[in-house]
Amino acid sequence: MQGKFIGVGVGPGDPELITIKAVKTLKTADVISIPKAHENKSSLALSIVKHILEERESSPEVLELVFPMIKDKEELKAAWSENAQIIAEKVRSGKIIAFITLGDPMFFSTFIYLCQRVKDEHPEIKLEIIPGVTSLTACAAVSKIPLAEKNEVLSIIPSSVDSNRIGEIAKHADSLVLMKGSKLLKELVPVLQKAGFTNNSTIAVVRRGTMPEEEVTVGKLGDVKNWDIHEDYFSISIIKENKK
Amino acid sequence: MQGKFIGVGVGPGDPELITIKAVKTLKTADVISIPKAHENKSSLALSIVKHILEERESSPEVLELVFPMIKDKEELKAAWSENAQIIAEKVRSGKIIAFITLGDPMFFSTFIYLCQRVKDEHPEIKLEIIPGVTSLTACAAVSKIPLAEKNEVLSIIPSSVDSNRIGEIAKHADSLVLMKGSKLLKELVPVLQKAGFTNNSTIAVVRRGTMPEEEVTVGKLGDVKNWDIHEDYFSISIIKENKK
Repeated sequence: MQGKFIGVGVGPGDPELITIKAVKTLKTADVISIPKAHENKSSLALSIVKHILEERESSPEVLELVFPMIKDKEELKAAWSENAQIIAEKVRSGKIIAFITLGDPMFFSTFIYLCQRVKDEHPEIKLEIIPGVTSLTACAAVSKIPLAEKNEVLSIIPSSVDSNRIGEIAKHADSLVLMKGSKLLKELVPVLQKAGFTNNSTIAVVRRGTMPEEEVTVGKLGDVKNWDIHEDYFSISIIKENKK
Repeated sequence: MQGKFIGVGVGPGDPELITIKAVKTLKTADVISIPKAHENKSSLALSIVKHILEERESSPEVLELVFPMIKDKEELKAAWSENAQIIAEKVRSGKIIAFITLGDPMFFSTFIYLCQRVKDEHPEIKLEIIPGVTSLTACAAVSKIPLAEKNEVLSIIPSSVDSNRIGEIAKHADSLVLMKGSKLLKELVPVLQKAGFTNNSTIAVVRRGTMPEEEVTVGKLGDVKNWDIHEDYFSISIIKENKK
């Protein structure tokens, strides 16, 4: 049988927000691969699919890949290449490898680096990607705040982006999503106001959306200064000019 | 039993890209609601879930709601209010109503308008939203082009936005997604180049991603002038500066 490498999005947290296709793949793959936990993120992806793996008649091999948190680009690339090599060897021996990622594999995921190395260095390997529900739409769902409609522009900004640039982006967007981290939100309010978002803009801050520890805060941009926001790696904020 | 109104994302097209949660809801809802087809979009959402509905022991009521394609804002709002009223009455009589949308309910969906009317005019109604896999990540998956990673900014732009504004947005984004329609892509290339996207930028044009008629074109921004692009309402383009 021909092996392949499959990036599998397992959704935002709620184990029922995984797709049928992902479930089928996880039930039949020879190898389940996960990034070795440096953050609790990777173990989260595994915990989401735990019940699916437990239902299997034969246990899959679990392959933990070390994704080093180093800054040097060349060293980092070498580490990814090594992981790609491990994957490629298993695929060539006929194995089907499912690499699980929280949310979606192509949306702010560590899978992207691995995928790029596999594509570049082992182009003969069969590669497949199963998209998943992102934290983006999950947070819109639990806060009941729409992301964008019709002719609206939606910009998605990691919280590491500097505030001057966020201001420029905000000038031309109808909706903003700030990914990961909310500690800078209070400092960003004046930046967003200067860019044209009024105090009446709707803002939703969602922490661990669809997970058991979910916290949802919805209000107006003008109220943020009074909020007591819990910092969390899995926080997402949606800010939307209220046009009513 | 208490009724409720549930917006259900059925995913981008492949019937296996629906979530377990959506399937469970569609198997138990009393009423399945869809927008009455003006485009072929709504019948698409129904076709995705057809096999799920056919497996049910008792057929649900199918409620088609007319979503008029009128421009006048007040008339439009009145039409949405009428639909919200129909929904609210059924929910009050204890019915569970699942409104199905292609992709995700809060991401460029007609559900947003209906949801807003229900929230504003019938706040006592229990409302739930089940997020779905968007065409956004589905197109990234089938083209194998990542949307954004780490510190990158991703801007999502409906093709109806004017090209000057697209140019301004492009200046501050690492990745762009053009939603719906690709006929303007050739005209946009110089705009994107002026905004800093080089000829070497990666571009993927995906038509009907994960549907049987799927077409995927991947190349460089500099090649677009030679492409023969099929226009389609369900086309999505991903443009990403190639940093390698």
